[in-house]
Amino acid sequence: MKNIAMRLTYDGSKYHGWQYQKNGVTIQQILEEALSEITGEQIKVTGCSRTDAGVHAIDYVMNFKSSVKIPVDKLPYALNYKLNSDITALEAWEADEDFNARFSSKGKRYEYKIWNGKMRNPFFVGYSWYLPYTLDREKMKEAAQHFIGTHDFSAFMAAGGSQKTTVRTIRNCSVTEDSNHKELITIAVEADAFLYNMVRIITGTLAEVGTGKILPEEIPDIINSGDRCRSGLTAPPDGLFLKKVFY
Amino acid sequence: MKNIAMRLTYDGSKYHGWQYQKNGVTIQQILEEALSEITGEQIKVTGCSRTDAGVHAIDYVMNFKSSVKIPVDKLPYALNYKLNSDITALEAWEADEDFNARFSSKGKRYEYKIWNGKMRNPFFVGYSWYLPYTLDREKMKEAAQHFIGTHDFSAFMAAGGSQKTTVRTIRNCSVTEDSNHKELITIAVEADAFLYNMVRIITGTLAEVGTGKILPEEIPDIINSGDRCRSGLTAPPDGLFLKKVFY
Repeated sequence: MKNIAMRLTYDGSKYHGWQYQKNGVTIQQILEEALSEITGEQIKVTGCSRTDAGVHAIDYVMNFKSSVKIPVDKLPYALNYKLNSDITALEAWEADEDFNARFSSKGKRYEYKIWNGKMRNPFFVGYSWYLPYTLDREKMKEAAQHFIGTHDFSAFMAAGGSQKTTVRTIRNCSVTEDSNHKELITIAVEADAFLYNMVRIITGTLAEVGTGKILPEEIPDIINSGDRCRSGLTAPPDGLFLKKVFY
Repeated sequence: MKNIAMRLTYDGSKYHGWQYQKNGVTIQQILEEALSEITGEQIKVTGCSRTDAGVHAIDYVMNFKSSVKIPVDKLPYALNYKLNSDITALEAWEADEDFNARFSSKGKRYEYKIWNGKMRNPFFVGYSWYLPYTLDREKMKEAAQHFIGTHDFSAFMAAGGSQKTTVRTIRNCSVTEDSNHKELITIAVEADAFLYNMVRIITGTLAEVGTGKILPEEIPDIINSGDRCRSGLTAPPDGLFLKKVFY
């Protein structure tokens, strides 16, 4: 039995998120069905992240056990042949026996895209949060710095998480403007692990910094309060991209 | 009666092209219906280009006659309120009486995107031509230069055009690689006017240069031959973007 690891990229627009559920097609389900067909086994995959409905992944990692005879590096081709064009397998390799895409992760990087133009852009609908009013980007950049470090992030967590601790280490948090589209703002957050909806609440909070409702220097205080009512609203899922998983 | 000019951007994926037709929804039809509703008049729009089904526009220009009382610069907001998110009005202004979005044009710039990676990219499906094999990009760049100038481009025209002359002046033709995605190749063509499917046939020809089937130095000869059989195949519509119209 091999422990096969695989890198994927997917457009989450049409799916009910990663994780298997009864009502609605999920990415996990699509992959398990295709891999089971290819291998003739009952495949169960473990994903690095349970992305919500509408969330996208640029570089996702999963693993599964199989005795498949196809050379492991050819599996992505066999799989892509079966998949719709919104999910693509990029690479596969045989991992150590104890590798687990979720629990072996040492960190992840997410990016959140905001389309901050007066008019919406048809090519970014479904792939960004459309905020037509003026955002003070310098203040957002300043505020982002305050998230870096080891903190209890309960003020930036939606109900529904099942973690033992709400302490996380944010290694990097930045707000940048795209060189091709001045309207496009990218919020990048890298951490050892994330709480439920954490990036989307950080994004919602940074947007309120951009409009002036929250001051950059208030961020440490909001973190320390542990009070979800003091942070910003949860940004919509479609602007969120899992960018990289670290092992 | 005002002559109103408007800039638009649209994702052509779901439409049967720009021009009104009986079988299938077109962008022209959607705009005429929405504008007729807003103005209470029977609006007929003139577009700068008859983009084919699946072709996109970053910066399209149209004009129409109307006595509408809404201030002209507010019209895009009224229109966007009615439109789906895949068509967006960007700007409107009152043009000279004799301005015609099609016939007043002094030139256009198109861009064609090729996704030249081993694996397809879900975020570029519908917005690029997926060519997984190795392309010699330097040869493509060299070949592109040979298209620049005033030539009879009948070898790069699909049947179905209705032009008086097949002579066009290509002001610029370039092949560039994206700084964020090394897999993404952009072919940009700027000309005084275009023949039917001209950019898509130039792209198909440059792709065949990339694979080695056609040599860069053969391009002048292919142009001079006027023989459609000697140029490359017609690249699919979904990689094509109208980038800019010049007046």
